[in-house]
Amino acid sequence: MNITKETDSMRTRIDFSEILVHATEYVQNINAFLQDQVQSFEPEIQELIEYCLVKGGKRIRPLLVYFSGVSEDEAAMEDLVKLGAIIELVHMATLVHDDILDDASVRHKRESVYAKYGASVAVLLGDALFSHALKLAAEFPTVDICREVAASTRTVCAGEIHQTFERGEVELSLEKYYRAIEMKTAELFRVSCFLGAKLGGYPADYTKAVGQFGYHLGTAYQIFDDYADITGDEDRFGKTLNTDLLRGKYTLPMLLLFEAIEVDTRQKILDQLNIDKYVPVKEITELMSFYEIKGKVIEHFERQTSAAEQLLVPHEDKMPTARLRDILHFVSEQIRVLT
Amino acid sequence: MNITKETDSMRTRIDFSEILVHATEYVQNINAFLQDQVQSFEPEIQELIEYCLVKGGKRIRPLLVYFSGVSEDEAAMEDLVKLGAIIELVHMATLVHDDILDDASVRHKRESVYAKYGASVAVLLGDALFSHALKLAAEFPTVDICREVAASTRTVCAGEIHQTFERGEVELSLEKYYRAIEMKTAELFRVSCFLGAKLGGYPADYTKAVGQFGYHLGTAYQIFDDYADITGDEDRFGKTLNTDLLRGKYTLPMLLLFEAIEVDTRQKILDQLNIDKYVPVKEITELMSFYEIKGKVIEHFERQTSAAEQLLVPHEDKMPTARLRDILHFVSEQIRVLT
Repeated sequence: MNITKETDSMRTRIDFSEILVHATEYVQNINAFLQDQVQSFEPEIQELIEYCLVKGGKRIRPLLVYFSGVSEDEAAMEDLVKLGAIIELVHMATLVHDDILDDASVRHKRESVYAKYGASVAVLLGDALFSHALKLAAEFPTVDICREVAASTRTVCAGEIHQTFERGEVELSLEKYYRAIEMKTAELFRVSCFLGAKLGGYPADYTKAVGQFGYHLGTAYQIFDDYADITGDEDRFGKTLNTDLLRGKYTLPMLLLFEAIEVDTRQKILDQLNIDKYVPVKEITELMSFYEIKGKVIEHFERQTSAAEQLLVPHEDKMPTARLRDILHFVSEQIRVLT
Repeated sequence: MNITKETDSMRTRIDFSEILVHATEYVQNINAFLQDQVQSFEPEIQELIEYCLVKGGKRIRPLLVYFSGVSEDEAAMEDLVKLGAIIELVHMATLVHDDILDDASVRHKRESVYAKYGASVAVLLGDALFSHALKLAAEFPTVDICREVAASTRTVCAGEIHQTFERGEVELSLEKYYRAIEMKTAELFRVSCFLGAKLGGYPADYTKAVGQFGYHLGTAYQIFDDYADITGDEDRFGKTLNTDLLRGKYTLPMLLLFEAIEVDTRQKILDQLNIDKYVPVKEITELMSFYEIKGKVIEHFERQTSAAEQLLVPHEDKMPTARLRDILHFVSEQIRVLT
């Protein structure tokens, strides 16, 4: 295992625009495709669809679809665009419904649909996005795309259920934490890479490896996201932070902190969160620093990014590998800029 | 057009048990299949799935699947069971989410999931039911089942959106009312019959006709349901009634009443509903009686049941026709027992 070497290689700075430059046409096509979809929604919600679909997000899942499936053969482009859009629709649907569960008011630097229009509209909008995604998936000539997308969507919902029912569980095992984030996030990353490679016409050993790459990348991404929720800056991340804590959703950094600190200190924090409905940011930050939680979170994170990188090694000869490495590289850097 | 004759023939009483007797094995299989699905949901929600799936409902959509597709050939049974279960799952998902939109506390004679466990759990549960249905649909060897189910699910969501955004619209056109109920209810009835007949191996002219039969039956059924919401008895219907009115959802009987009464009377009713949050049941009942609204609703209802019956005429030779007639017959009688 070359973890040190791999990690070092990741430390070279990479900007997101350097990734996008290799997918200019694809991103344009995805945006145009999503813009076209807006018309196929009901007039009453077109503005909302546009609000949450056209302008939001980094399109990281579609980019994974593209970079996993790109080849010299231009013919697959159309399929890769459609698949990327389908996965983005599923992802958006989960975000719209998540904001109801999390009572979150900001998303993609703007008011969330839930906060702006209420729970009823958010329920309907999420359902419309979900069902539209599955309708598009069923347009592929064979049943395999629909099968994978439907199964993944089911898994994502299952992950949300686990995480919601585990709320308030202070002694949540790391195993259960991982299980929830793998279902909730890693699965959709996996299917993006796996089906992207499949539509790109790559052989089975590569599609499987690249799917696993996506799975580990997705797990790492969620660890980063959970850490950002506690230590990040709302302006930078463009969404309501600290919502996890106030809703009793204890993610990796807090679970590691709870493990490290005295029972009394933990109780004091829990009382502030649950009784006073107040996040003692300063105290948590101080304790995190004292118990070196960031380092521990990074260890967990890098176990995933290393595993992802290893999976690409036997496939260096394939065209997509360099770009997938860039995305991995970019994600790897994100956690370091957090305090 | 033999409307009088058709209507007369429907007046012979038929009990639901007389319909079920022709589908004993199918209903057992559907219940067993749904019971088996419970295990495939997350442990945390199995009880909830059982709560809303295993014990609830008349299974009218699965029965339509079965009666549209049944033939001498026993081999199709397994497919008809699976399809019936898929459509029931989609239907249940819409009910679970509807109860959030309608703020409804009773469903199938018991507390609704939303009232019992809150909006978050209802959102998650509905999503799990939806995605599980689509996952099962994608298990069929060809993509057509998944395609029809996904498209129908999309249409159902669109219908809900129309109806939700039209809330409070006192001068809603009948055209818009019909559009919403066709999308929300008729479409799933249509797909039940259409795909049932298709899986049963029937020819294209029959599958199409039986699909249209389902569409008209579904429209009639929703007209009945909307009328029952205003004039029915909660104990008998096993769900919260009058919710439509308090949520500003004006359905056929109210639209017809609003059209008939004086503007001042209408305003008085609207003030009681919207300002006092009170349903003036006695006054509405009296006005309905005075303006003979029931008769007008029945006219609308029978336009649909007659159209449905006509569609079966050219297919009298097919095995399912008698049973589909029985269901039509049963639904036709329901509206008459209401006050």
